Amino acid sequence: MNSANDGTPLYLEDLSVGQRFVSDTFIMEENGIKAFAADFDPQPFHLDGDAAKETFFGELVASGWHTAAVTMRLMVRSGLPISGGIVGAGGEITWPRPTLPGAILHVESEILEIKPSRSNPSRGLAIVRSETINQHGEIVQILVARLVVPRRLT
Amino acid sequence: MNSANDGTPLYLEDLSVGQRFVSDTFIMEENGIKAFAADFDPQPFHLDGDAAKETFFGELVASGWHTAAVTMRLMVRSGLPISGGIVGAGGEITWPRPTLPGAILHVESEILEIKPSRSNPSRGLAIVRSETINQHGEIVQILVARLVVPRRLT
Repeated sequence: MNSANDGTPLYLEDLSVGQRFVSDTFIMEENGIKAFAADFDPQPFHLDGDAAKETFFGELVASGWHTAAVTMRLMVRSGLPISGGIVGAGGEITWPRPTLPGAILHVESEILEIKPSRSNPSRGLAIVRSETINQHGEIVQILVARLVVPRRLT
Repeated sequence: MNSANDGTPLYLEDLSVGQRFVSDTFIMEENGIKAFAADFDPQPFHLDGDAAKETFFGELVASGWHTAAVTMRLMVRSGLPISGGIVGAGGEITWPRPTLPGAILHVESEILEIKPSRSNPSRGLAIVRSETINQHGEIVQILVARLVVPRRLT
């Protein structure tokens, strides 16, 4: 079920619909949340716990783009060993709930579709749904990504 | 046309379909591309120009998530002055071409839809399409985001 365990790089032919991958974990430290926000998402609810009380969230939360970036790190390091790397053409992203300081995140991915390219026999697309899940089992992000995956040259 | 110029915080009632906003610019430095990749997307084509030659991209390119993060920075700082901040529920993201070192990016956003909440009279959703564009006028990212926007309490 978890093909990520041995880390062997996978080609399009190695993927199958329903195949699942589980990543290692990453701890979202409060300092990291604030540092990412200062660089990329400088809003009170990502920068300062006191200022956050007066906002939509009511407390310090990570930028959704920080959750997305950490999700990518987990997938690259341990979650999805695609041959040639994880190359995304795009996708749909949802944040059902915020990532809080101290959250311990991991990513569970499932192959939804496999589409060999009609014009290029050396590659195809895989549609992959990745849930980013905290230590309470709550989903903080759902990403359905279109990945470019090489085919074996036979 | 560009309501962002004066920076007045906007409520749902201030938005209209077709309204456009243009951000300032941001330069994607090569060192910044490599630093983001080391933290969040440690793959050869984001980390090292020589190693990148043997990969899908053939040259050093920014992580798509770095482009997304810089897009958010531009929107927060100058691109979209929503009252209470930019709070995204999710969206669709596409990277039609990579962001290269030295790229000078800006963001052009357009309001596509405005949906007052049926259950909560104090807010609604705005669907916003944001194109991230380089110095050659090429689109490097398209984001269609669902933003939570407060209504005026009258």
